[in-house]
Amino acid sequence: MNCSKPVSNKNVKITDKFWKEKTELVRKKVIPYQWKALNNEIENAEPSFCVRNFRLAAEILEKRKKGIETPVFSTGEWHYSYKNENENSFFGWVFQDSDLAKWIEAVSYSLQNTEDKNLESLADSAVDLICAAQAENGYINTFYTINNPKKAFSNLRDHHELYCFGHLAEAGVAYYYATGKSKLLKAVCRYADFIADTFGDNGIKGYDGHEIAEMALIKLYEATENKKYLYTAKLFIDRRGTKPYYFDIEHNENSGSDLNYFYNQAHLPVRQQKEAVGHAVRAVYLYSGMADTARYTNDKELLDTCKALFDDITNKKMYITGGIGSSCVGEAFTFAYDLPNDLAYAETCASIGLVFFARRMLQADYNSKYADVMERCLYNGILSGMAEDGKSFFYVNPLEVHPQACKNDSRKRHVKSTRQKWFDCACCPPNIARLLSDYGEYCFTETDNVFFVNLYQSCTVTSDKADIEIQSDYLQSGKVTFNINTKKPFKIAFRIPYWCNYFEFSKSNPFIKNGYAYFDIDENDKITACFKPEIKIIKCNPNVRENIGKAAITRGPFVYCLEEKDNGKNLHLLRLAHNPKFFFNGESITAKGYREDFCGNALYTEYSEATEKLVELTFIPYYKWANRGENEMSVYIRY
Amino acid sequence: MNCSKPVSNKNVKITDKFWKEKTELVRKKVIPYQWKALNNEIENAEPSFCVRNFRLAAEILEKRKKGIETPVFSTGEWHYSYKNENENSFFGWVFQDSDLAKWIEAVSYSLQNTEDKNLESLADSAVDLICAAQAENGYINTFYTINNPKKAFSNLRDHHELYCFGHLAEAGVAYYYATGKSKLLKAVCRYADFIADTFGDNGIKGYDGHEIAEMALIKLYEATENKKYLYTAKLFIDRRGTKPYYFDIEHNENSGSDLNYFYNQAHLPVRQQKEAVGHAVRAVYLYSGMADTARYTNDKELLDTCKALFDDITNKKMYITGGIGSSCVGEAFTFAYDLPNDLAYAETCASIGLVFFARRMLQADYNSKYADVMERCLYNGILSGMAEDGKSFFYVNPLEVHPQACKNDSRKRHVKSTRQKWFDCACCPPNIARLLSDYGEYCFTETDNVFFVNLYQSCTVTSDKADIEIQSDYLQSGKVTFNINTKKPFKIAFRIPYWCNYFEFSKSNPFIKNGYAYFDIDENDKITACFKPEIKIIKCNPNVRENIGKAAITRGPFVYCLEEKDNGKNLHLLRLAHNPKFFFNGESITAKGYREDFCGNALYTEYSEATEKLVELTFIPYYKWANRGENEMSVYIRY
Repeated sequence: MNCSKPVSNKNVKITDKFWKEKTELVRKKVIPYQWKALNNEIENAEPSFCVRNFRLAAEILEKRKKGIETPVFSTGEWHYSYKNENENSFFGWVFQDSDLAKWIEAVSYSLQNTEDKNLESLADSAVDLICAAQAENGYINTFYTINNPKKAFSNLRDHHELYCFGHLAEAGVAYYYATGKSKLLKAVCRYADFIADTFGDNGIKGYDGHEIAEMALIKLYEATENKKYLYTAKLFIDRRGTKPYYFDIEHNENSGSDLNYFYNQAHLPVRQQKEAVGHAVRAVYLYSGMADTARYTNDKELLDTCKALFDDITNKKMYITGGIGSSCVGEAFTFAYDLPNDLAYAETCASIGLVFFARRMLQADYNSKYADVMERCLYNGILSGMAEDGKSFFYVNPLEVHPQACKNDSRKRHVKSTRQKWFDCACCPPNIARLLSDYGEYCFTETDNVFFVNLYQSCTVTSDKADIEIQSDYLQSGKVTFNINTKKPFKIAFRIPYWCNYFEFSKSNPFIKNGYAYFDIDENDKITACFKPEIKIIKCNPNVRENIGKAAITRGPFVYCLEEKDNGKNLHLLRLAHNPKFFFNGESITAKGYREDFCGNALYTEYSEATEKLVELTFIPYYKWANRGENEMSVYIRY
Repeated sequence: MNCSKPVSNKNVKITDKFWKEKTELVRKKVIPYQWKALNNEIENAEPSFCVRNFRLAAEILEKRKKGIETPVFSTGEWHYSYKNENENSFFGWVFQDSDLAKWIEAVSYSLQNTEDKNLESLADSAVDLICAAQAENGYINTFYTINNPKKAFSNLRDHHELYCFGHLAEAGVAYYYATGKSKLLKAVCRYADFIADTFGDNGIKGYDGHEIAEMALIKLYEATENKKYLYTAKLFIDRRGTKPYYFDIEHNENSGSDLNYFYNQAHLPVRQQKEAVGHAVRAVYLYSGMADTARYTNDKELLDTCKALFDDITNKKMYITGGIGSSCVGEAFTFAYDLPNDLAYAETCASIGLVFFARRMLQADYNSKYADVMERCLYNGILSGMAEDGKSFFYVNPLEVHPQACKNDSRKRHVKSTRQKWFDCACCPPNIARLLSDYGEYCFTETDNVFFVNLYQSCTVTSDKADIEIQSDYLQSGKVTFNINTKKPFKIAFRIPYWCNYFEFSKSNPFIKNGYAYFDIDENDKITACFKPEIKIIKCNPNVRENIGKAAITRGPFVYCLEEKDNGKNLHLLRLAHNPKFFFNGESITAKGYREDFCGNALYTEYSEATEKLVELTFIPYYKWANRGENEMSVYIRY
């Protein structure tokens, strides 16, 4: 398969006002804050116990080595509360280990961006801690190591061991790339070898309940060129959803139908899956691994499956913000066009996973739609997951919030009207940290002779084709200048953003294909692109029942929203004036609208034309909402 | 307190085309069908085990009397599945007994309407069965009698013993009134005496977790004039929600806050409760008992509380169909104006309970608003609970249904798109049966000198003031004629329906007060009233976020809806034309509207004026929906 590779984050130096601020925020605030969180040092926040579990696991291994017996605890649950359990047992969710792995990964990318000796030494200590918690056979998982090592791999469906392995492997690879230090990489390779043996052709015929091991094994394969890892990833993918269901065998159940495993995308062999179903994060992590595997094994059928799944998600199941997984029940996809605004789940991690999937699709299929989705997620449903000060987070990213409903209506208890300091299940915060630190990795892809520009921001990028200095005014005027210091002739391909009706290039005669404008570069060159970011009124496909008669406002990659802070209470009473004039002040947008008056207290009255007041509506970028205290928010407005 | 009494169902002979059909359906189909259901004789329906539990309890009591030991089972759960339990244990929900009681009550009212020897003899056998299951001390509850009699009254919060008692008491009273047979009444009086002792001033300081005992004890008081029953009802009411919380004591818990008992309306002393909260059926059953008690004890503070609660419900928390309790979580009220259409719960039983509450308020406060609410519930959210053939039922009565969502979106699993043959928790079907059979009881109330006409239908009614023959065309022309055969001078007061802008009476100079038109009657008289039933476009208070920009259609007491059967799929694409002309064909209503076209497959597109097709919209009465197979339904339409 003819494929492109991403330009490494290491070779992209972000200088962009918008994105540099984010990566620096992650480095200076988020990463140190999260270290505290993993160490239970944030006041009034849910304790993590993640670091504590690693320490305890290491101590227990040490004791066992010395022949000292250690107590055995239950391994039946998903969550172990420190309030009820013995102090020598595991605390937290069974997947708690992954938070430390994601933290190390975030540190790794951050070190690629900016040297930071203190942070590196802290990460070294975290690596030491993880390695100390590795068993002789290579196994690393504090839950089973602490509670009962004999039960390892006995509950793949629910217990996230292979998921934690995946995050550890990604951390090991990232830390090696960033620092050249191979201690963690070697440890996870030992663990991967143990897994490859355990789950090999003569081993357990299982696969991961929460996917990620597939894409992590591919990263190990890329870092080590050891084909065993690719082979194991493919094994997991090929086995998934085949009959008899492994999860049935494991649990001594006969589910009798494939309905049980929708949640895990294990209801059908993956190549027969044409619709995205189940837990959204699991889904896009699996599809990412499938796309990787398809690329490396030349599996066209698998790639076509990935294409169908990507289209199903993005054409039928994705919020305008890039949020996916509309239901809180199972954090899951429901059905086509079911995109309720106020009940949305749209987990931050799911949008992050969609970026992973999109980037991998882009590597195999040079179509701008994949980068468009990355952009949509990054500027909206992912950034919304973190406060502007980097110290609080959303897990759920709704498109409409009525704070009273979050408190008084149990159906909306999952929706928080303010960001939280930390979560009992804290997958999202470290996931944002690792993605934002690694932003550079998503900007460019290249083949032997084409350099693809997927995302636009000020930066310098180094490739064997050229060193390129980019000066971007993408978010304001839409103008982006590329100073190309050419090393050898190549083609440069610029993504034409999905939202852009008017674009121009300073260089003439581009060849346009699949949303990219291609130019031949033979010598040093300077190209200015301009993607005019107009303010747009966007409507949903009429199949989206929730938004009939409503519209959203966008400008460039940003989706906008109304907040109570600017527009008063009862946002649902507002409507946009017909063909309104919009004013853009560099960030927020204003336009004329109307606010319906209250008339009397009756619950039901005979219809009469509503009286309305002319008002000025103020829209702010969606990702910035809830940074000024608790208030109502709505992306959509009646139009 | 100056109060009115309802004219007994016994003294009202319904001849009305509309309502006679319903009461006859209940007599001929529903009651026999439900008897089969209680005996597990409906194929492919959830088994009840209700009759089986009574038989088993009777056998066990017989054994115990003979000194034979019987096994003891767990009493920890709410529900005992016949799939898992020992064959000698109780099966079903802990409140299963109430279904048989409600069935006897429905039979009683039906026998008042129409003699039916077979039915009476079946009911006699049911009475025998219940009496056989009564313990020596008067206690009747098959769950504890079967599983462990020592645990009786040990879990008032969850285990519905006093609830089942309430239903038994109501059945005993009804059967006595209908047939003059006092066997069941005597049995429940013995049980009530036992309860009065157990929970008296020197007894357990508890009260019912699921309310109804209060209003049932009042019924016993009315039937027997034994003040002990009124006293016990008042005890339960006065104790409720006082600190320390009895439910805390019972469960050896310290809830630490009043939040735990919102669900049971036990979060505050009842006189401090000004907002309807928690489980909606429990709430209106409690409020009914409070209204009764206030009336009999001249407790103005308690009555004012009831008024505040009634207004809170009907001005802020009631669907246009009379449905209440908008959330499936706890079958509960949420907060003011939170009335989602598609996620509605609106349990049939809750609307029935609201009728109970409204009728009791009407007895103490002669205001048409109470009868208006009875009418709204009866013609809409209650009748919708039963299929036109009387053989299937809705528990949940949504205002918008999209069948695919009911199947694929777990958030809407409680919403069924077709009526069910029976329910595992089958409170609603026998509740409809007992209410519809007793329809006559809600039509008229009277004081010493005023005869109130609350509901309009063809019937003859007998009072000490007059015999009145009513010929009603209320649902068509709105004309109702009263042939009054006067026995002594009195005032007749006609409710002016809330929906009626144009009314007239053949007799002049009515005195109008609180929604009733009063006339002095001195001799035989004939009065024709006409309440012109116009087709109306109704809008919700703008605080109802869900329905901004939408309207509902009503005619007279009926709320209308759109069904897919008449209007095609995707009802959300429809809108009503501006100032439409409506056509009424005796039942359904048609009007011009528009259907938005689909244009392309994109999920998000730049706004352009939607293209629409002119269409004829067909509206049918809401209560008739889902009688022609599974399909989409919506009460509200964009306007």
